[in-house]
Amino acid sequence: MPANKTVVVGQSGGPTAAINASLTGTIEGARVTGAPVLGMRHGVEGLLRNELMDLGRTFPDEASLDLLVHTPSSYLGSCRYKLPEPSVDEEPYRRILEVLEEHGVGSMLYIGGNDSMDTISKLSRYGASVDSDVRFVGVPKTIDNDLVLTDHTPGYGSAARFIATCVRELRRDSSVYDLRSVTVVETMGRDAGWLAGSACLAADDASQGADLILLPEVPLDEERFVGRVSDLLESRQTILVVASEGIRDRSGSLVCERAGSAAALDAFGHIGATS
Amino acid sequence: MPANKTVVVGQSGGPTAAINASLTGTIEGARVTGAPVLGMRHGVEGLLRNELMDLGRTFPDEASLDLLVHTPSSYLGSCRYKLPEPSVDEEPYRRILEVLEEHGVGSMLYIGGNDSMDTISKLSRYGASVDSDVRFVGVPKTIDNDLVLTDHTPGYGSAARFIATCVRELRRDSSVYDLRSVTVVETMGRDAGWLAGSACLAADDASQGADLILLPEVPLDEERFVGRVSDLLESRQTILVVASEGIRDRSGSLVCERAGSAAALDAFGHIGATS
Repeated sequence: MPANKTVVVGQSGGPTAAINASLTGTIEGARVTGAPVLGMRHGVEGLLRNELMDLGRTFPDEASLDLLVHTPSSYLGSCRYKLPEPSVDEEPYRRILEVLEEHGVGSMLYIGGNDSMDTISKLSRYGASVDSDVRFVGVPKTIDNDLVLTDHTPGYGSAARFIATCVRELRRDSSVYDLRSVTVVETMGRDAGWLAGSACLAADDASQGADLILLPEVPLDEERFVGRVSDLLESRQTILVVASEGIRDRSGSLVCERAGSAAALDAFGHIGATS
Repeated sequence: MPANKTVVVGQSGGPTAAINASLTGTIEGARVTGAPVLGMRHGVEGLLRNELMDLGRTFPDEASLDLLVHTPSSYLGSCRYKLPEPSVDEEPYRRILEVLEEHGVGSMLYIGGNDSMDTISKLSRYGASVDSDVRFVGVPKTIDNDLVLTDHTPGYGSAARFIATCVRELRRDSSVYDLRSVTVVETMGRDAGWLAGSACLAADDASQGADLILLPEVPLDEERFVGRVSDLLESRQTILVVASEGIRDRSGSLVCERAGSAAALDAFGHIGATS
C-alpha cells in the first residue's frame, strides 16, 4: 500500500466466521504503514453513497481489534451488488473513483467471494484503463482452498474444522445401533478436494475418523471402492465414507450426474451427489 | 434403589449430547448406595441376549466418569426395539425378568425418549402384575422440557443453548445487508413453549436477541402481531421473530395447519409451520 495514502476496505457477499479476521488484518496492515483506514458500509453500495467510517477511530487499540477478529458475521455490513460492464454503464465506476479521490485513497481492498472478486477485478481493470493510481486489491474468502500460491485461504480453516467435527459426531452416532452400516457424507468442493480431505482431521486419539475419503482429483474406480468397503466390513461394523461432491469416474463424468433427474438440481442448477 | 442389589442401566433411542450424563449420574448414584452397576449393550435388545457389562469396573474413578459425562452420543449403544404388549407376546418379558434375576438386579433404569419410556412403563406394569420386586425407572431425555415436577429435563439444556446460539448468529447475519427484513425462526416444541422461550437467552451485552417470541401457550392474535412488527420496524431495520411450531390462533387451530398441503407434512406426518 502506498505509505500515508488512505486505505479503504469493504466486505461483500455472505457473512462468515472468517471475514472479520480479514478486516482486522487490513486495519493492522494499514496501521503499520501509517495510513488512515476507512471502511465502506454495505460494500460498494455504501461506497457509491460515500458512506465511509473511520476504522482507525473505531478500533484504536489491540483490545478492540482482538474483539473484532473473534466476531463472526460481517462488521461493515454487506451487499449483493453487481457492477455493470463499463462498456454498458460507466457511471458507477466514475462515481467510485470520485469518492476515492475525495478521501485521498491510495488503495481499496475488497473482502469477499467470487462475485466480490468480480467487482474488484472490474474496478482494477477500469482503474488501469483511465490511468488511476489507486490500487485495487481483492481479499478472498473461499472454503474451497483452491487459490494457487495461497496455502490456506480465509474461510477454509473454519470450514475444515466444521467438517472434522461433523465427521467425529457422525462416527459416534453411526455406531450406536447394533447394525452393519455404511454412512456416506458428501462435502462441498466441486473441483478441489481440500474440504473432503479435511475429514482426515476427524481422526485422533478420541475418534476413528473417516474410513475412506473420495477426492475429485482421484478418479473413482467403482469396483475397487466396493472391494475396499467389503474388506473394511470384515473388521468393523460401521463404515464412514467422506465423498466430495465433485468425484468423477475414469471417463471424467461426475458421479453425481448419474442421478439425472431435474428434481435433483440444487438452487444453483448443480446436481447433488446425494440425490 | 434397594441397597446392595445390582442396578442395571440401558440407553435407547437417538444418541444425544446429554444421555451419557444421565448414565454417569446412574453410576454415581449406584456407587453411593454401594450397589454393583451393570450396563446393557444396545438397550433391551442386549438385555434380552444377556449382554451386560460391569460399569463399576469400566468407570472405577472420578476421572473416568468425568470423561463419560462430557462425551456425546450413547456410550452403551442404543436400539429401536418396541416391546409387544404382554397379552400378545409375554416371552420377552419373561426373558428379561429371568436375566435380571440371574444377575440379582434390584432396579433397572432406562434412559431415553418417548418410546423408551413406553418400554420401561410396560416392564414396570408387567413386573407389578407378576409380583416382581425389581423397580423399573425411566430416566427421561426430552428437549421439550415438558415433564411435570421436573425443572429442567435432561436434553433441554443443550437444546436451549443451541437455539440461543442460532438466534445470536441469525441476528448478526440478518443485519448485514442494507435491507428491511423480518426473519422468522421456527423452533420445535409442539405443545410446550420452553424451546421457543430459550431464544431469550440470545440477548446479552453482545447480542440483541429475538424481538418477539411466540409460544404455543399464548394464542396468536394476528392483528396485534402485525402491529407489533410494524411498530418495531419504525425503530430498527431487521426484526427477528422466534415462533414455536405449536402456535395456535384464538380458535385453538394450529397456525401451521393453514399450509394445508400434503407435501408440507414431515416424515412423522406433522405439518411444518414454515411450509
